[in-house]
Amino acid sequence: MLEKLKEETLEANLDLVRRGLVLYTWGNASGIDREQGLVVIKPSGVDYDSLRPEQMVVTDLEGKVVEGTHRPSSDLMTHVALYKAFEGIGGVVHTHSENATAWAQSGRDIPALGTTHADYFHGPIPCTRELTDDEINGEYVLNTGLAIIERFQEIDPLAVPGVIVAGHAPFAWGKNAMDAAHNAVVLEAVAKMAFMTVMLNEKAGVSQALLDRHYFRKHGANATYGQK
Amino acid sequence: MLEKLKEETLEANLDLVRRGLVLYTWGNASGIDREQGLVVIKPSGVDYDSLRPEQMVVTDLEGKVVEGTHRPSSDLMTHVALYKAFEGIGGVVHTHSENATAWAQSGRDIPALGTTHADYFHGPIPCTRELTDDEINGEYVLNTGLAIIERFQEIDPLAVPGVIVAGHAPFAWGKNAMDAAHNAVVLEAVAKMAFMTVMLNEKAGVSQALLDRHYFRKHGANATYGQK
Amino acid sequence: MLEKLKEETLEANLDLVRRGLVLYTWGNASGIDREQGLVVIKPSGVDYDSLRPEQMVVTDLEGKVVEGTHRPSSDLMTHVALYKAFEGIGGVVHTHSENATAWAQSGRDIPALGTTHADYFHGPIPCTRELTDDEINGEYVLNTGLAIIERFQEIDPLAVPGVIVAGHAPFAWGKNAMDAAHNAVVLEAVAKMAFMTVMLNEKAGVSQALLDRHYFRKHGANATYGQK
Amino acid sequence: MLEKLKEETLEANLDLVRRGLVLYTWGNASGIDREQGLVVIKPSGVDYDSLRPEQMVVTDLEGKVVEGTHRPSSDLMTHVALYKAFEGIGGVVHTHSENATAWAQSGRDIPALGTTHADYFHGPIPCTRELTDDEINGEYVLNTGLAIIERFQEIDPLAVPGVIVAGHAPFAWGKNAMDAAHNAVVLEAVAKMAFMTVMLNEKAGVSQALLDRHYFRKHGANATYGQK
Repeated sequence: MLEKLKEETLEANLDLVRRGLVLYTWGNASGIDREQGLVVIKPSGVDYDSLRPEQMVVTDLEGKVVEGTHRPSSDLMTHVALYKAFEGIGGVVHTHSENATAWAQSGRDIPALGTTHADYFHGPIPCTRELTDDEINGEYVLNTGLAIIERFQEIDPLAVPGVIVAGHAPFAWGKNAMDAAHNAVVLEAVAKMAFMTVMLNEKAGVSQALLDRHYFRKHGANATYGQK
Repeated sequence: MLEKLKEETLEANLDLVRRGLVLYTWGNASGIDREQGLVVIKPSGVDYDSLRPEQMVVTDLEGKVVEGTHRPSSDLMTHVALYKAFEGIGGVVHTHSENATAWAQSGRDIPALGTTHADYFHGPIPCTRELTDDEINGEYVLNTGLAIIERFQEIDPLAVPGVIVAGHAPFAWGKNAMDAAHNAVVLEAVAKMAFMTVMLNEKAGVSQALLDRHYFRKHGANATYGQK
Repeated sequence: MLEKLKEETLEANLDLVRRGLVLYTWGNASGIDREQGLVVIKPSGVDYDSLRPEQMVVTDLEGKVVEGTHRPSSDLMTHVALYKAFEGIGGVVHTHSENATAWAQSGRDIPALGTTHADYFHGPIPCTRELTDDEINGEYVLNTGLAIIERFQEIDPLAVPGVIVAGHAPFAWGKNAMDAAHNAVVLEAVAKMAFMTVMLNEKAGVSQALLDRHYFRKHGANATYGQK
Repeated sequence: MLEKLKEETLEANLDLVRRGLVLYTWGNASGIDREQGLVVIKPSGVDYDSLRPEQMVVTDLEGKVVEGTHRPSSDLMTHVALYKAFEGIGGVVHTHSENATAWAQSGRDIPALGTTHADYFHGPIPCTRELTDDEINGEYVLNTGLAIIERFQEIDPLAVPGVIVAGHAPFAWGKNAMDAAHNAVVLEAVAKMAFMTVMLNEKAGVSQALLDRHYFRKHGANATYGQK
């Protein structure tokens, strides 16, 4: 069942480790089959070294396990909420990568300070509001997803494929699991550069024209980057 | 004698090196056999490359060597003090890992700034008071342990499995030596993120509800993380 | 056609990766054959792992592709502008290396704070002005080159073989592609040290005599460094 | 001639590279045979990869080459000055390691902020004064050595085996070349921790009693660290 998606999702999970975004088991990637409405996600707390495609867990869009003997990632309900709200995405990634997490803990949006950022994120990478005690004590993981979605009410999730959750850590997404992992790696790199930049100049910033130019260089009908 | 514990303790020592927490010989891990009241600890100043299980030193809870031809780690008396005071622990680790040590040198507690921290430490990672000159000139290593214990008078050492010693470096503990090493790795990661967070926002912080939620997600009767 | 130059230019591109200056495909190196007026440059968005000499693109000094089935790097027109304006250079490199990019995003020149800097750069590494909206919306890549050239009106590009473009990232150059890559590596190292230095002391600086001494130790008729 | 010293000195040079203290050829280690009054030092600007014992250069204490077909390191006269002034040392190392160099560029002493520092350096790692223009334009490399010696008028170089030269970079020394390299590695580690510490707390510091305790734990007649 969904063998190819399991392999792709596994590969995305392993890429997070290879790229240095994950310590121990602190990360997870998922992918979705939109036709069948099924999500493939990493099992919870399993070592990456021993992870095999058949251990990946299949759930429906309510988070109900459809196939798999392992528990799904404890962040499943956030992934599912994002898939339901952001129809154009095919993969979701969550990590505690160091720099993005430091920004999340600071409660500050990661400002768009240059072209590295703008090539992938068309505007600041937003930080959610803090969850209320009721949200935390209730359906916490789902509510994390809802807080992300709330923050994107006036932001296009396809143009800003990532978020930092206040006091927590980043999520990123993309057209599939590997693309989401790619965006998570970029989010971490951008967060690291932004940290140093604001230390050097708290008022740093660039023009909207520059952000537009770089974003649309890589995205949309008029993209010019890469091979045709 | 205690062959299994020696191997486990050696492995914990080596894990500290593999995880980048130890430069030269600046670290040590120990484990305890509670039934026999015997502690296994790394020998002092021996290179990790050549360390073998039979070189591990066995002592009693007064720090007296029971077996072994090498001197025990110079930090032995701190380990022993912690084993005597914190009955639930089975392993102790000491390192000079960079970020945790920087916090220790600053004399500041590492604040609980997010869920990465809260998944392992239920509250700030406390910094001890400075030792007095008399304590330093007396039984210094033992007094280091006593200062840690003093700091935990109103903190549960099982809920906060680590400390930073003012002007010195971190200690961590756990249910065995490898678990203590794991907590030492997390302490270092959390210290690194906290450094960047306070640079970005000196007033950063999260709600007690969030700290509780994440801590009890991984600990206690209602833990939901990982496989059953 | 230009086989040797293609191999050298490829090697310079790979060196950027080996030295940790490039994430994904975020960098490019080119070399020029001054006699023929032809530039060899990395193709756009191709993975470094699979890059082969025959994939390198040959263009003339107007940026017109003369040989090659791949699109040239999207930064081609900046490279070409620099070759036309800086007659003594034989190679150009562009990266988004972390520390240099952070400085570029801050909009600040990288000050000459010590001998490491002065051994390679005879004065601050300048930051360009921001581009206007018209420049961004027009021939953006070319205009980036023109902004660099404008910044070097009173600076000798052979004595300061690198620049940071405001809100963007560094460019470096040298007598050939590999030398340009070397200068890009040094620029990144110098940027990292300068970041920490200004955090420690915003007013740090050295005498012109020291900058002169170190620069002319490695450059010009009286150089004394290395083997004759 | 001095084959063993050449091999030891080569090994110390290579250790600097393995420990990440040296980029390109930015470092050098030397050792001295006190009986013969001869110094063995790395040749100038030669790649570490191809460095062989027979390429090491032998000089006398005036810096005159006694054996070797290569030029000695351009920093030779600083090494020689230190050997003449500090009679107890047997090895000298110079690097541009990142954190120590950042402190040198800042012009600030590296304060003794904890036990990691105190285990090796009995007090702050001093920063020299800036050289005058005359000193720079004259026998610059020798004058660098003299400025170091001047700074140690009231400091025991055996108790503080390293220095940072203002606007330049660190030197370290020890009982032989490998011990000097070891102290250079520690100086870099201590500099990194001190950077973060002063960012967290500009007023951080520890008692003289703690500095004494740790220093004399590893040094002198009453040392207790390591195996007897």
